[in-house]
Amino acid sequence: MGHEVVEIDVAAGIVKALENATGTLSEEPFDQLLLGTGGRAIRPNIPGIDLPHVLVAHTLDDAQALHSIADARMGDDSWNVVVIGAGYIGLEMAEAFVTRGHRPVLVDLQDYPLPGLVPELGVLVKGCVEHSGVEFIGGTEVTAITPESVVCGDRELPADLVVISVGTAPCSELAAAAGIELGAGRAIAVDERMQTSAEGVFAAGDCATSRHLITGKQVFFPLGTNANKHARVAGINIGGGQARMPGVLGTAVTRYLELEIATTGLSLDQAQAAGIDACSEQISTLTKPGYMPDSSTAQVVLVAERGSGRVLGGQIVGGSGSAKRIDTIATAATASMSVAQLLDTDLAYAPPFSTVWDMVAVAARELLKKV
Amino acid sequence: MGHEVVEIDVAAGIVKALENATGTLSEEPFDQLLLGTGGRAIRPNIPGIDLPHVLVAHTLDDAQALHSIADARMGDDSWNVVVIGAGYIGLEMAEAFVTRGHRPVLVDLQDYPLPGLVPELGVLVKGCVEHSGVEFIGGTEVTAITPESVVCGDRELPADLVVISVGTAPCSELAAAAGIELGAGRAIAVDERMQTSAEGVFAAGDCATSRHLITGKQVFFPLGTNANKHARVAGINIGGGQARMPGVLGTAVTRYLELEIATTGLSLDQAQAAGIDACSEQISTLTKPGYMPDSSTAQVVLVAERGSGRVLGGQIVGGSGSAKRIDTIATAATASMSVAQLLDTDLAYAPPFSTVWDMVAVAARELLKKV
Repeated sequence: MGHEVVEIDVAAGIVKALENATGTLSEEPFDQLLLGTGGRAIRPNIPGIDLPHVLVAHTLDDAQALHSIADARMGDDSWNVVVIGAGYIGLEMAEAFVTRGHRPVLVDLQDYPLPGLVPELGVLVKGCVEHSGVEFIGGTEVTAITPESVVCGDRELPADLVVISVGTAPCSELAAAAGIELGAGRAIAVDERMQTSAEGVFAAGDCATSRHLITGKQVFFPLGTNANKHARVAGINIGGGQARMPGVLGTAVTRYLELEIATTGLSLDQAQAAGIDACSEQISTLTKPGYMPDSSTAQVVLVAERGSGRVLGGQIVGGSGSAKRIDTIATAATASMSVAQLLDTDLAYAPPFSTVWDMVAVAARELLKKV
Repeated sequence: MGHEVVEIDVAAGIVKALENATGTLSEEPFDQLLLGTGGRAIRPNIPGIDLPHVLVAHTLDDAQALHSIADARMGDDSWNVVVIGAGYIGLEMAEAFVTRGHRPVLVDLQDYPLPGLVPELGVLVKGCVEHSGVEFIGGTEVTAITPESVVCGDRELPADLVVISVGTAPCSELAAAAGIELGAGRAIAVDERMQTSAEGVFAAGDCATSRHLITGKQVFFPLGTNANKHARVAGINIGGGQARMPGVLGTAVTRYLELEIATTGLSLDQAQAAGIDACSEQISTLTKPGYMPDSSTAQVVLVAERGSGRVLGGQIVGGSGSAKRIDTIATAATASMSVAQLLDTDLAYAPPFSTVWDMVAVAARELLKKV
C-alpha cells in the first residue's frame, strides 16, 4: 500500500507518513534513515508552462506519452514540436523526433548544444544536429508558451507539442523541512560517507550532492553513475561497514545519431575558474586507421595543470568507437597521472579499434608541448 | 639505390654496406646510429617448411599473395588450407579464409587460441572460431609438411596451402655480429633511452627489447604500439633531447568476426611467476543494458596484488564495444591504482555505450572482495 512521507522528525527518529488509500497518519521509528527522494524535471517559470501540450521527459510514463504522440503524428508535416533545452535529454528528444520523421526545433540559452562542452566541440554537435533536419536556435530565451506556439526572441515558433528539458532539480523539500542542510543546487548536502547533516540520516541519488574529485567542491551532478555509487556507499555505511565516496568527475557520454560525445573532469575554463593554472589542447584525428572502411574523424580536447602536468579532464566528439575512450582520461584524472605518463601508457591498438597512437595519446603528445 | 648493410664497426663508428646493383662496398661513418632492422616471421624447423605452398603472413607482399590465392580458390570445396599457430596473426588468417568461404584448419600447441589468454577466456575464443566453420586442433605439434598435407599428432590434414603464424623473431644478427648485447627473445637489448650496449647506438621496433612496466623485466613484445613508442624515444635522444620509455604492458586487442578480445599486463599465472602475491576474478556481464538491441555478453578478468590491491592486468572477451575498455585497466595499472580506486572511478555511462557500472568496475567490485 502506498504511503507518502509528510515529515521527518530527526530528533525523535520518526518518519511520519500518510497512507494514500485511507489518509491515516502513521509513524515509523528509525535508527538510520536513507533519503532517496530523487529528482524532478525542472519546469521553468514561463507563461504557459502548465498548458497540457507542454511535457517533460523524466519518468518512464513521460517517455511513453512522448513516444505515443511522436508515433501517432509520424508523416504529419503540419505537426510541430519544439524542444526547450539542448542538454543530454533535449538532444535525445530531438534525435527521437528526427528518427520518427519530424523536424523539431531545439532552443537553448547557449549558442550550441550541451552546456559544459567547449565551444569548438559544441559547434560540431550543432552542425550534426542541424544536418539531421533540426532547427537549432541558440543564445535565445523562451519568454512564453501559448496553446499554438513558443515565443523566443522575436520569433513565434508554431508548436503542437513542447518538450521541456532544462535540467533536473533535487527533491529535497522534506529534508529541508526537517532541518537537514542543503548544498549545491539545493540538493541534500552529504559527506564522503553519504551522511547528511543529521546523524544517522543518509542521502543518495539525484537528491544528494557529490564532491568533485579535482576541485574538492560540492557539486550537484544528477547522473545514474553517481546515484549508483552513492547508494553503494550509503548502503555499506548503514549496514555497519566503512565506505567513502572519494569524488566524481561529471563523466558523461551520449550520442546524436552517429556522432558520439563525451566529457570528463574540468574544461580549461572550469579549471581556471577553480584557480588552477591549466592549459588545454585540441586535436583532430581518426577513430581508426584511414584504410579501414569505417574509420571516421574525432576531436579530442585534453586539459592539464601546468607544471605538474596533472590530467584534469577532457572531451571527445567523434564517430563510432570514440566516446568511450573518455574513460582513459577519467582514469588518468582519478590517478592524478601526468600528461607524460598518459602518453607513455600502453593503450590497445589494432586497425579495427584504433590508430597505433590512440586518440587520447595523440592529444597527450600535443598537450605535452604546453604543460 | 638499395644498399645492404653487411657490418657495423662500433669501435670505428662505421657502417659497411654493399650496393645491391653494383656489389660495391661503401662505408658510412656515424656518430649515432639507429638500428631499426625489424622482425621476421618465424619458420619453425619442420620437415617440408621450405615447400613452395608454405607461406607466412608478415609483409604486405605476403598478405597480397595470400589474398590472391584465397580469392582464386573461393567456392572450391576440394581446396584445403591449414594455418599453423593460433596467435593474433593465425586468428586473423583463419578469419580471412572463413570470410572467403573456406573452412581452414587451425593448429596450435596450446589447447585454445591466443597464448597469454587465460584458459577460461581462451575456450570462448575457441568456441567462436569453431562455430564459424574452422576446425581447431589444439594441444598438437606439427611434425611434418608434405606437398599435400600437414602431419600433426596421428592425423594427416590435406593441405593445398599452409600458412605459418607461430610468431615473430627479431632481426638482430647484424647487431650481434657487431658485439652488441642481445636480450629477451634474442632481441637487441636496450635501456630506457633505447640505447644498446654500444654507446651512441640505439635500437627501436621489432628488433629491440622492452621493459615490462610491472615486473621490470626485459621482454620482447614485437607490437606496433611498442615500435612507435620506441622510435619516438630513440629519436628524441638521438636528437639531443631526453626521453625515456618507462615500460610496456603487452596490451593487445584483436577480434574474430564479432568477438572482441583484449589483454593487458599480467595474468594471475604471470603475476605469481613474477613472485607477486596476486589474485584474480572473472565476471560475466553485458556490453550495454540488456534492453538495448545490440547488447551482448562480455567476460572480464581482473588481476591485482593482494594487500596493496594494485591493479596488475586484465583480459576482456566480448561483443562489440567491449575490447577497447582494456585501456581503462591499462591506465589503472600504469598509475598503480588500487582495485578500490578503479571501482570508484567515474567511468562513462549511457545505454548505447555501457551498463551503469562499466564492465571494468563490475570486475573491480568483485575482485575487491579478494584483495
